[in-house]
Amino acid sequence: MKRNTKVSTAVIRRLPRYYRQLSELQAAGVVRISSSALGRSMGLTASQIRQDLFCFGEFGQQGYGYKVDLLKEEIGEILGISQGHTLIVVGTGNLGRAIIRNFRFSANGFRLLAAFDVDPAVVGTEIAGIPVRHAGGLEDFVAAHSVDVGLLTVPIAAAQQMGDRLMAAGVRGIWNFTNYELTCTRQDVVVESVHFSDSLLTLSYLISQREDMEGNQ
Amino acid sequence: MKRNTKVSTAVIRRLPRYYRQLSELQAAGVVRISSSALGRSMGLTASQIRQDLFCFGEFGQQGYGYKVDLLKEEIGEILGISQGHTLIVVGTGNLGRAIIRNFRFSANGFRLLAAFDVDPAVVGTEIAGIPVRHAGGLEDFVAAHSVDVGLLTVPIAAAQQMGDRLMAAGVRGIWNFTNYELTCTRQDVVVESVHFSDSLLTLSYLISQREDMEGNQ
Repeated sequence: MKRNTKVSTAVIRRLPRYYRQLSELQAAGVVRISSSALGRSMGLTASQIRQDLFCFGEFGQQGYGYKVDLLKEEIGEILGISQGHTLIVVGTGNLGRAIIRNFRFSANGFRLLAAFDVDPAVVGTEIAGIPVRHAGGLEDFVAAHSVDVGLLTVPIAAAQQMGDRLMAAGVRGIWNFTNYELTCTRQDVVVESVHFSDSLLTLSYLISQREDMEGNQ
Repeated sequence: MKRNTKVSTAVIRRLPRYYRQLSELQAAGVVRISSSALGRSMGLTASQIRQDLFCFGEFGQQGYGYKVDLLKEEIGEILGISQGHTLIVVGTGNLGRAIIRNFRFSANGFRLLAAFDVDPAVVGTEIAGIPVRHAGGLEDFVAAHSVDVGLLTVPIAAAQQMGDRLMAAGVRGIWNFTNYELTCTRQDVVVESVHFSDSLLTLSYLISQREDMEGNQ
């Protein structure tokens, strides 16, 4: 497989959407799909689809479209789903608990190993079968289990400090749910933040646009 | 202000990031910023910044950059932040609770009016001052308070049904946290979904790429 290291951020951000869409098509029993049909279902043009996928190699066959299961597998491979990445959750408040209980880590190629907190009331318990350990043991655990990703869901006041500790301990990535813009102090660590507000403001824009259009009728 | 209704999805998705970045610059006391400096802080080129903002009108002055507070205000206006949109939360499990307690609705121009659930143990209580009502009264409440957005965080099995009820009740948008791909049954309703997995798979891709590069050294 061709791996172009100069792929644009926009294309990278679309890959998980392809993967999701193809998973749904597969679940719906679709075997083969044209770039135009795939594009329509994702709000993209057929030519965008072809250009995006061309960044990673030759998929599909002119005039025959893509085989859904094969394309899904290849994109999953590109996304690193088969690499068995490991993850810990730091912070077991409501959001941490919700994610531990409901997020399908394994469907995304991740193994959730443990959760960490400082609250004596939760340390030593389990959440959906995942042991909650004391945050004091974070560094040792990351080293012993070569943890790839730390999911950060601690209060804002503790965000940078816990982020720094995760980076120093040797994780390769931080999945940041703290609403705090972490300063990445190590070049070899990737920080990916989930910003709920970006999503709500997009929705706000779209409904405001419609209100305007209706107002102008 | 010019309002171009043919703005691309990619530009729309960047607007909340501009708003967030400008809010941080403002908090840090930055008064004026060049398009190249703004671009650097967001991983975009100066010309992308200029092109994006040009979709919405004339901002900034050649050679002088942008006034941070003014640009933030204008983008906030475009995003509909000043329109006083209203919102209800449907589903008060761990994720619903976490969002009610911690998400800054007002900073994004939204007023959270109420939460809804079917669990008798929570109906009638309050979460962070927000009353939890029985889902049976959803339609009446939406009509009486002309609710703009329903935040959906119910179990997957109930997602489409509750989504349909919200749409029929008259909301203009659904902010979907259910991990279920809602079928939008009304053309006048916008569905915006938060897909945690898209974010984790992007992180997975980025750390896999680095592993490859290190492996090739």
